[in-house]
Amino acid sequence: MTGERLGAVQAALRERGIDALLVSVGSDLPYLTGYRAMPLERITALVVPAAGDSALFVPELEAPRVDTFVDVRPWGETDDPFDRIAAALPDRGTIAVGDQMWAAFLIAFQDRLPGVRFVDAEPLMAPLRMIKDIGEIAALRDAAHAVDGVADHLSTVRFTGRTERDMSRIVSDLVLASGHESVSFAIVAAGRNGASPHHEASDRLIRSGDAVVVDFGGRMRGYGSDTTRMYCVGEPPGGFEEAYAVLGRAQRAAVESVRPGTTAEEIDAAARSVISDAGYGEFFIHRTGHGIGLDAHEQPYIVQGNLEPIRAGMAFSIEPGIYVPDHWGMRIEDIVVVVDGGVERLNRSSRKLRFVE
Amino acid sequence: MTGERLGAVQAALRERGIDALLVSVGSDLPYLTGYRAMPLERITALVVPAAGDSALFVPELEAPRVDTFVDVRPWGETDDPFDRIAAALPDRGTIAVGDQMWAAFLIAFQDRLPGVRFVDAEPLMAPLRMIKDIGEIAALRDAAHAVDGVADHLSTVRFTGRTERDMSRIVSDLVLASGHESVSFAIVAAGRNGASPHHEASDRLIRSGDAVVVDFGGRMRGYGSDTTRMYCVGEPPGGFEEAYAVLGRAQRAAVESVRPGTTAEEIDAAARSVISDAGYGEFFIHRTGHGIGLDAHEQPYIVQGNLEPIRAGMAFSIEPGIYVPDHWGMRIEDIVVVVDGGVERLNRSSRKLRFVE
Repeated sequence: MTGERLGAVQAALRERGIDALLVSVGSDLPYLTGYRAMPLERITALVVPAAGDSALFVPELEAPRVDTFVDVRPWGETDDPFDRIAAALPDRGTIAVGDQMWAAFLIAFQDRLPGVRFVDAEPLMAPLRMIKDIGEIAALRDAAHAVDGVADHLSTVRFTGRTERDMSRIVSDLVLASGHESVSFAIVAAGRNGASPHHEASDRLIRSGDAVVVDFGGRMRGYGSDTTRMYCVGEPPGGFEEAYAVLGRAQRAAVESVRPGTTAEEIDAAARSVISDAGYGEFFIHRTGHGIGLDAHEQPYIVQGNLEPIRAGMAFSIEPGIYVPDHWGMRIEDIVVVVDGGVERLNRSSRKLRFVE
Repeated sequence: MTGERLGAVQAALRERGIDALLVSVGSDLPYLTGYRAMPLERITALVVPAAGDSALFVPELEAPRVDTFVDVRPWGETDDPFDRIAAALPDRGTIAVGDQMWAAFLIAFQDRLPGVRFVDAEPLMAPLRMIKDIGEIAALRDAAHAVDGVADHLSTVRFTGRTERDMSRIVSDLVLASGHESVSFAIVAAGRNGASPHHEASDRLIRSGDAVVVDFGGRMRGYGSDTTRMYCVGEPPGGFEEAYAVLGRAQRAAVESVRPGTTAEEIDAAARSVISDAGYGEFFIHRTGHGIGLDAHEQPYIVQGNLEPIRAGMAFSIEPGIYVPDHWGMRIEDIVVVVDGGVERLNRSSRKLRFVE
């Protein structure tokens, strides 16, 4: 990685009249420097002035593992890192701070720099990070193919008699074995638990008649994967297959609506209208998708009210769902990337209901 | 969980003249409500006024999995959650915010409540969270015993010919198999990599003559474990065993210095003086330890300059190390809990150098 992205950020800072960018934990740091900091109480902070050289402050004991082109400034265990970093920041004007910096850190800087206005860096960073370059798209594609293989392999695994937690563990192991460096989540929600979109895998035994939501992803070469497929043990519950056919049409309609120039909310509406027209509108209780990249969830959010125009290079999930409380839930999720004139689905494993033992 | 801890927080708010507490991601939330939020862009926020009823704002799609005695207020996908939460906060005075809340969220509240002074909640929360109750100590003890079993089991595993990453994966699997719900880290650092305290497991093959730092922990019933043991493949490198004897004495001296009334920095000095007196002072490049509980790192920090008096119920790591760049590194780590008149080591597996194949 070179300083090209830092240069783009500095241009954006000058354009917006912001004097410096200050980022800590979160994905702006690896985006700009290639280095991801651990989310711990010892602060790591990158200072990017609108003009001039940037500096990366790191805890001394992390310094040996920091490999970046940016000037690295270690701070020692008995230093006050906030004093040192504040001294490298402007003491007036505006500073944009990374969205995931800890509030305690921001307050420490606000106390030391009372003449500065601190603003959220997301409006500055999102336009840059939303448009993936060819290397980023390749990483997302490889991660998607890896989890597609996991989804297919799961069709050969016996679900019956295992708990959701056991299955979640199997999914996690498969994600790691597929080449991911980490697992971000492995939701396994059987039967009525499927009606809670972010259900935490429990000790509930999976049994015949369960429809099972399996939603999983991780990080491969720094970039996220995220897919959801539906598995069914024995006969599906009453009404399930009819709803699943609707969901499949809704997901396809949303994917087919993706092209440069459409808006995020139009994609959401494409899925939602199919589901509503079929009478399930009240059971689709979340947005249609979220951007993905160095973060598992990032801009653009595919949600009503988001007028962001979709552009080539954007990558996001399309994941409508139908959740009937106390009965069952279902979701189909793929990552797509916007290309000139259309869309590429990165996840290509079958979206059919998968019957398992 | 009942509202006892919330009551203690409200008393502390009134004592300090703070009008409300606002917590989001991080461990203050499960400490107060029993519910841990996912660190995502959809805000979860607990509002605790100095007097009156608290409210927990959660994204609508998380609501089904929230099980708490606090009044839960779901917000929908197209609501502005910051407007809704701000309306439940005082519009003047002082609000303490959880230390790990995202900076973007804090800025959103600062924009909506310009008459409020926002302060870091850590000075309010740490005195409460630092003193563990009997249930918390039991959870920490069980987690420690579980990872002790992992450390012992590792003595029977063949290291030679495996990569650091393979070994890290084995450690992670063992931690989960021991009853932990998640793995926080599994550092495996062989040979010269051991000289970087937070080394990330790499593709380096482990071979004869390597001393290997294995530092691992996770979360069990919500509470953290964290231990470090040293493994040696074949003959230790030159000078290693002499230094290891010093390190063992330093770790023991620090543990033996723990009792109510001593200060955090005195415990650090107890370890540091042994290492310095033996001539290795420049190679002990980090503090002696950190508190542990719902967070993997929390107060009290066992570091020079911390005059915090140690009290019964505190739990923290004692983990001195010696790191010789380009050669090797070593660390011994146990979690201890302060009891009336002394200390209980929670980790009890052998601290001897473990010779492995």
